[in-house]
Amino acid sequence: MIAQTPEPPYYAVIFTSIRTSIDQGYEEMAKRMVELACQQPGFLGVESAREEIGITVSYWKDLESIKNWKHNSEHSFARKKGRKDWYKSFRIRIAKVEKDYGM
Amino acid sequence: MIAQTPEPPYYAVIFTSIRTSIDQGYEEMAKRMVELACQQPGFLGVESAREEIGITVSYWKDLESIKNWKHNSEHSFARKKGRKDWYKSFRIRIAKVEKDYGM
Repeated sequence: MIAQTPEPPYYAVIFTSIRTSIDQGYEEMAKRMVELACQQPGFLGVESAREEIGITVSYWKDLESIKNWKHNSEHSFARKKGRKDWYKSFRIRIAKVEKDYGM
Repeated sequence: MIAQTPEPPYYAVIFTSIRTSIDQGYEEMAKRMVELACQQPGFLGVESAREEIGITVSYWKDLESIKNWKHNSEHSFARKKGRKDWYKSFRIRIAKVEKDYGM
């Protein structure tokens, strides 16, 4: 689903990753993180797709919301596990959405 | 491949789409657009994945580069065709990358 975000400005966290071959626990954790993110104050939506690389873009009201989500304890645990087991490499970009349009 | 972008600030164009069932010409055009984007001044990289939805994030030096790419004639033609045939819905978000990090 394309995220139904409000009028800009708001923030996007672009998470691009390449997975390892370790699958154990990954799917459940990924699902749980989306579920948990949705419950955070300032969360606006999320979009995700994976082929050769995975791209997950989550949308947030402001930098404060992103910071709070980063420090969520369950999320912190998942990130540690991600660095150790699930991701060969990743990049996180924090960006301010200035304009959007669509069809 | 994860895009090798320079130190922020730079810009991201987040293009999220849902395809129709019309395939004719789509793959070639998508490939050609990436090839063409890479040749534009200010282009910094691109990342793409599609499952239920497609996400393509292209990175650009500044808003000027994005505007020039938008007005490229071959790209304009492809966008028209996209609106007419290939995309059921899409959203384009233009965002200023303020921070990035990775592993």
